[in-house]
Amino acid sequence: MTGFTDLGYARVDTDRESRQGLPEVVYAPGKQPAEISGIVTELLSRSAGPVLVTRVEADVAAAVEVSGGTYHETARLLVWRPAPPGSLRVCITTAGTSDWPVAAEAEAVATAIGLSVEVVRDVGVAGIHRLLAVRDVLDRADAVIVVAGMEGALASAVGGLVACPVIAVPTSTGYGAALEGVTALLAMLTSCAAGVTVVNIDSGFSAAMAAHRLAHAVTRSR
Amino acid sequence: MTGFTDLGYARVDTDRESRQGLPEVVYAPGKQPAEISGIVTELLSRSAGPVLVTRVEADVAAAVEVSGGTYHETARLLVWRPAPPGSLRVCITTAGTSDWPVAAEAEAVATAIGLSVEVVRDVGVAGIHRLLAVRDVLDRADAVIVVAGMEGALASAVGGLVACPVIAVPTSTGYGAALEGVTALLAMLTSCAAGVTVVNIDSGFSAAMAAHRLAHAVTRSR
Amino acid sequence: MTGFTDLGYARVDTDRESRQGLPEVVYAPGKQPAEISGIVTELLSRSAGPVLVTRVEADVAAAVEVSGGTYHETARLLVWRPAPPGSLRVCITTAGTSDWPVAAEAEAVATAIGLSVEVVRDVGVAGIHRLLAVRDVLDRADAVIVVAGMEGALASAVGGLVACPVIAVPTSTGYGAALEGVTALLAMLTSCAAGVTVVNIDSGFSAAMAAHRLAHAVTRSR
Amino acid sequence: MTGFTDLGYARVDTDRESRQGLPEVVYAPGKQPAEISGIVTELLSRSAGPVLVTRVEADVAAAVEVSGGTYHETARLLVWRPAPPGSLRVCITTAGTSDWPVAAEAEAVATAIGLSVEVVRDVGVAGIHRLLAVRDVLDRADAVIVVAGMEGALASAVGGLVACPVIAVPTSTGYGAALEGVTALLAMLTSCAAGVTVVNIDSGFSAAMAAHRLAHAVTRSR
Amino acid sequence: MTGFTDLGYARVDTDRESRQGLPEVVYAPGKQPAEISGIVTELLSRSAGPVLVTRVEADVAAAVEVSGGTYHETARLLVWRPAPPGSLRVCITTAGTSDWPVAAEAEAVATAIGLSVEVVRDVGVAGIHRLLAVRDVLDRADAVIVVAGMEGALASAVGGLVACPVIAVPTSTGYGAALEGVTALLAMLTSCAAGVTVVNIDSGFSAAMAAHRLAHAVTRSR
Amino acid sequence: MTGFTDLGYARVDTDRESRQGLPEVVYAPGKQPAEISGIVTELLSRSAGPVLVTRVEADVAAAVEVSGGTYHETARLLVWRPAPPGSLRVCITTAGTSDWPVAAEAEAVATAIGLSVEVVRDVGVAGIHRLLAVRDVLDRADAVIVVAGMEGALASAVGGLVACPVIAVPTSTGYGAALEGVTALLAMLTSCAAGVTVVNIDSGFSAAMAAHRLAHAVTRSR
Amino acid sequence: MTGFTDLGYARVDTDRESRQGLPEVVYAPGKQPAEISGIVTELLSRSAGPVLVTRVEADVAAAVEVSGGTYHETARLLVWRPAPPGSLRVCITTAGTSDWPVAAEAEAVATAIGLSVEVVRDVGVAGIHRLLAVRDVLDRADAVIVVAGMEGALASAVGGLVACPVIAVPTSTGYGAALEGVTALLAMLTSCAAGVTVVNIDSGFSAAMAAHRLAHAVTRSR
Amino acid sequence: MTGFTDLGYARVDTDRESRQGLPEVVYAPGKQPAEISGIVTELLSRSAGPVLVTRVEADVAAAVEVSGGTYHETARLLVWRPAPPGSLRVCITTAGTSDWPVAAEAEAVATAIGLSVEVVRDVGVAGIHRLLAVRDVLDRADAVIVVAGMEGALASAVGGLVACPVIAVPTSTGYGAALEGVTALLAMLTSCAAGVTVVNIDSGFSAAMAAHRLAHAVTRSR
Repeated sequence: MTGFTDLGYARVDTDRESRQGLPEVVYAPGKQPAEISGIVTELLSRSAGPVLVTRVEADVAAAVEVSGGTYHETARLLVWRPAPPGSLRVCITTAGTSDWPVAAEAEAVATAIGLSVEVVRDVGVAGIHRLLAVRDVLDRADAVIVVAGMEGALASAVGGLVACPVIAVPTSTGYGAALEGVTALLAMLTSCAAGVTVVNIDSGFSAAMAAHRLAHAVTRSR
Repeated sequence: MTGFTDLGYARVDTDRESRQGLPEVVYAPGKQPAEISGIVTELLSRSAGPVLVTRVEADVAAAVEVSGGTYHETARLLVWRPAPPGSLRVCITTAGTSDWPVAAEAEAVATAIGLSVEVVRDVGVAGIHRLLAVRDVLDRADAVIVVAGMEGALASAVGGLVACPVIAVPTSTGYGAALEGVTALLAMLTSCAAGVTVVNIDSGFSAAMAAHRLAHAVTRSR
Repeated sequence: MTGFTDLGYARVDTDRESRQGLPEVVYAPGKQPAEISGIVTELLSRSAGPVLVTRVEADVAAAVEVSGGTYHETARLLVWRPAPPGSLRVCITTAGTSDWPVAAEAEAVATAIGLSVEVVRDVGVAGIHRLLAVRDVLDRADAVIVVAGMEGALASAVGGLVACPVIAVPTSTGYGAALEGVTALLAMLTSCAAGVTVVNIDSGFSAAMAAHRLAHAVTRSR
Repeated sequence: MTGFTDLGYARVDTDRESRQGLPEVVYAPGKQPAEISGIVTELLSRSAGPVLVTRVEADVAAAVEVSGGTYHETARLLVWRPAPPGSLRVCITTAGTSDWPVAAEAEAVATAIGLSVEVVRDVGVAGIHRLLAVRDVLDRADAVIVVAGMEGALASAVGGLVACPVIAVPTSTGYGAALEGVTALLAMLTSCAAGVTVVNIDSGFSAAMAAHRLAHAVTRSR
Repeated sequence: MTGFTDLGYARVDTDRESRQGLPEVVYAPGKQPAEISGIVTELLSRSAGPVLVTRVEADVAAAVEVSGGTYHETARLLVWRPAPPGSLRVCITTAGTSDWPVAAEAEAVATAIGLSVEVVRDVGVAGIHRLLAVRDVLDRADAVIVVAGMEGALASAVGGLVACPVIAVPTSTGYGAALEGVTALLAMLTSCAAGVTVVNIDSGFSAAMAAHRLAHAVTRSR
Repeated sequence: MTGFTDLGYARVDTDRESRQGLPEVVYAPGKQPAEISGIVTELLSRSAGPVLVTRVEADVAAAVEVSGGTYHETARLLVWRPAPPGSLRVCITTAGTSDWPVAAEAEAVATAIGLSVEVVRDVGVAGIHRLLAVRDVLDRADAVIVVAGMEGALASAVGGLVACPVIAVPTSTGYGAALEGVTALLAMLTSCAAGVTVVNIDSGFSAAMAAHRLAHAVTRSR
Repeated sequence: MTGFTDLGYARVDTDRESRQGLPEVVYAPGKQPAEISGIVTELLSRSAGPVLVTRVEADVAAAVEVSGGTYHETARLLVWRPAPPGSLRVCITTAGTSDWPVAAEAEAVATAIGLSVEVVRDVGVAGIHRLLAVRDVLDRADAVIVVAGMEGALASAVGGLVACPVIAVPTSTGYGAALEGVTALLAMLTSCAAGVTVVNIDSGFSAAMAAHRLAHAVTRSR
Repeated sequence: MTGFTDLGYARVDTDRESRQGLPEVVYAPGKQPAEISGIVTELLSRSAGPVLVTRVEADVAAAVEVSGGTYHETARLLVWRPAPPGSLRVCITTAGTSDWPVAAEAEAVATAIGLSVEVVRDVGVAGIHRLLAVRDVLDRADAVIVVAGMEGALASAVGGLVACPVIAVPTSTGYGAALEGVTALLAMLTSCAAGVTVVNIDSGFSAAMAAHRLAHAVTRSR
């Protein structure tokens, strides 16, 4: 038993589910539809949980010929065998409406892997009363994913309000000095709110997966 | 009730403990010993939990005149009223011995705020068998803090092995293209292991605080 | 009449006061005490308003032999003939106590050039209630100078609350991804609060001078 | 009364006008025409002042179905209910003709929100006599917006001539070492002319909004 | 005898083969098909070894009218007179399937210039057991070319396992903080595995040529 | 007499020719064909020397309706009234054939403004004998313009061989770590050959204009 | 048999020698003299080959109490049990005398691990005849290590002359645009000479270790 | 006759004077006083012109034991056998007094190698009338060296006024966004004044050497 299947063009990590509680997730860019189909088929046959393909453009998704999948267009996500909703409550907030596609990926992935998601959109600090008005939503979450571009200040504001884990996702929203998300990334890393953690720019996927790790810890501690 | 005390030179957030489960932590750089003493005294009188001052050089620590504190030299940390050990098990790993001061800060802070810490030093990927040999330690942790400089590859290796939250701390260990920790930071943010989260360069403190947020979520879910 | 005096080592802009309402301000780094003395003497004799030397270390200040000057240590500022308080009310806020030296320069310069200053320290967004509690102070200001390092989120929070001009000063407070103030600078430039303007890192001086330009516009419009 | 309207895809800050004297301005990128229409409709019904949408491409503008709006093509701006001309005189200068689209946005926004605008184009420092020839125009302004790309030296030249507020807008005009506006941005931030303030690259909008804050201060002081 | 042929648009280095064991390799970008044809014709007539053109898009390749060439589409390589397989065994590994086009260039060039190539795809460290399972393949290689994007950790893992030369090729796979390959580049340069060498981002060609230099040294030492 | 003509969209510097020996040169990007036509017409009527428009794409050039102009396609240059060849001999060298478009601009501009140009293509240091073979050409030049991308080493090699002015033009040739010309730029600025000067990336125009300044100095000194 | 010894502060990789032909090399920065002593003692007892400590300052070296070691001051290297000279001939060249400390490290490490070294100093391209004069030395080498700062052009010049492996070491020699070695690093990575490989800035150690890997390949192929 | 002398630690380019009209100039950093002495002695005996050592700290200069040399403290320059004043007139201008040390190096080197120098200090664009007042000085120069830090706008202003060669030297004067001279460097490279050339940050030496190349061209053309 090697723990992987060598398809030639890919070495599928079939051991992933037993190791981390989820089958390997497929990253679509640079892969042919036939390759994606092959990997997904292998994962479906060698594991029991949800199978996901991320960053799939609509035309590629249409060319992946494995039955039973669902395509989430804004999230650019393909999903087979989504998990039932679990007990971990994740709140996903955005600073502005332009951050939505990244938040949509976080929401779709989180839902597919069994987290319970509540979304709060457009609560950027330029109108801080909007954030304060949803404080009850924030307080009942087990983790908050903050999705923000430009200066990313929402991560600090949320980080200062809640006690639970805060996973900050910088987005490439903005122009000029926003440096395609680098400014929000740096700002979130240097947040004055202690214990905020950060994932890659525009990676709603990473934030959802970080929340999945959290769910693992919570579940196990019971 | 305003939720803060205005000392003139500082506006102490006395509401922090009720909001986030820990009194405000004091960041020492740029503060006079008398200012630190004043803030600590206020925090001790207005809250019940551990009071910490981070990044305190030894001479400053010696000049802080508030009784009952303990100074951790390598961690550059001052602690009053440390919390008793809690149930969340955090494993702190380092890639090399040069990463120790940052890991020491993570350890001292985590311990002071009531986490149970196990340390595994010097398991960088240049000798991957060292990491594989401590897999049982990793597996019994509720969260792993990975402290690594240079190329920071340990975060990916650990992230691929464990199911629990991984908090990566890039360090400024290295020279030249290590860019004082920026390379490790970028590498950890782009880890091929899904769901790894990252904090600021050399911030053992942030990693410990992120673990504290995790402990909050775990405790609450019980 | 040339509008300047050529001292050999410097070409003093004696026309500045008539052009901009203030004598030329002297930047100390790289100048010998004797050169500073010479320039100050020339300015005192050729103009009527306040004469300032910025970024003067204490030992240099002590070696400048022109009577009547006052040295502000934290602000590293030398002042001769300070202006009487004017009617423009400037509120200077800081995110943390470590930002104080930069704010102190802004305060000392602003006061010396005839602005009325009110200072609000330590209202960073990690405890946003501290900022909301001083909203009356913000509201009565004609301009707000926001001094913040790390992620500089305070500029956005203030920018969203007040209607008057907001001048943001990024500071080099912080470490690692704070990049010696570059992160705060970029964040302030991309603030989601519209119309926030930014000056150079750690330049309390520039912020005060921008406020002086504002005072000019206000005075003239009466 | 919450101070906002939750449209699901957006949380419209209906309190903005009372707080800052202008309704919230809509940033178009990433929003669907129907979303823009919905937000604009809400703003028109919940406030009294001008309603603006910035960075709208022509095809999106055509798809926004809210009557009474005007589209400014070069400025990429949609405006409903423009304000009558106010008393604050803003002079907008450009270094070269290639900077015009950014200046056009500044002009269109400033005019829509009630500022009196005078435009001076193409006075870059390579032919400094062109700038000196318009000194009377500069002198009668209450604020000058300087729009320049490449090395952005015009901001320093103007800053040295006028006493009023100078708001510098770096543009992405140029190539190579111009770094898409970053060079002009850095140059303007380090201007040797004291008190020049800076906004984001290519953001004529931000400059106009900064002038609006100034108008607020001037009006109030009367 | 000058050692080159001046074609006007190019100065063909006809001495290259005697100096370095291979004719000059042609870099296609910026060259017209007729220019490529002219240079290739000259090289074929003035040398005896393989003639290569790199980074040739398919339409350009189709327009190059020199008989006997073979086009490798994924590798974007044109080859005339490939060398017979030599004794140096090069193992080319990739971290993920998205890195394949770069590895394909390395494979095609290496094969064309007479190296014996074995390819191992998709052994990134997120599933380290996949790499450990091919250790025998790594061990029988005379050199290993590691092709990886994102954080490039595979270079360190391989570098710690094998004793032979490791040539790391960072790829632009990834997004956000991957910075189009810069992160992998920096990470590989700061690898904790000693003696790993690095070539330019996405340059499978450079890695193959470095292996050719190695073959020269090995051959000569016999 | 103001020294300029205000066309509304442009302020043509009609004093430029008397000041610097050449009419103002028009930079095309961001200008409408009608604007270019208007400026060119004005320059032709108000000066006597060559009138140039740089960086003009072919379709724009075709739409510029001013008779007597010549379009250089590779150089993207429009010229009216080219100057007769002068006595200053400029040698333009390139490292590779891919650098040709930039060198072509330098050649076309230099020729149009009255310099005598000799071109030496494709003498990069990977085959240093090619450069040494044209040493006589280099030696008879009054100035050498070195056009090179990638690592730009040709500037240092030429700078070490000749005694005359060397004007280095970095190009964006290359990929990955070439950083779109920034690497060549930095390398040329730090050349170990003393007295090499540098202009902006891809700016053949700037190099030719620098040579024109040199011709001015030489002519005047006779 | 675990393949390592856990000293608490370090996990010594005792398997390294059998895996890679050399005991683990100790990186001194951040380690206490007692820790270095402990690791060295362990390595001496658990392996047979040379034991090295790199980047050791003189005072630390003096405090390392393990008999039999030799300290190389310029190279900042401690060596026990140096290997006898092997058959692989490495030529180490420098561009300037300021690059010597880095080359000295390469020389000392290479010699200690059994390579035969020949040094050629100060052959930068500003006087290319110096390099051409030592071409016989270059030609008899099995590998050339090129140590250069500033623009690092020597790597390209050497890469174009020799057929054997070229390992380029950028140094931090220079100032301003040299960016502490980053410019040389980027330039070497984009060398127009094919197959040049690069190691970290100022890392003579890495270059020597890369040569050791080469020696492994050569030895094995016999 | 090899054209160089091998001193072991240095390979002195004794052919430089015949090739470029000046003996090799010695760069002091990283060289021992004895090495400097040896190289200077060799140059004095093998050439006829001025011998210079740049960037020599006072204590090193004092330890160089070769008679007949003169030390320029501000310029950090050692000179033997300075050339008599030549006919080329170089004007060196500075933006501020803090730029003087760099200008002093330019002046001392230029004078030592036989150029006629006129210095104009402190004419930055914040008071543009100071520059316009010295226009006659600029106009009589054969070349102008512009030394400026911060935003470096003086280079553009001078470049727009004079017809002769302009050599811009960015300095590290300033702080924050001045980025230790990088901002001035970028700004000068993108100057809107055509034909301005640039040398490395703080390199008064390079500017003087560029002027020497110009003198060569002028002399030769007579």
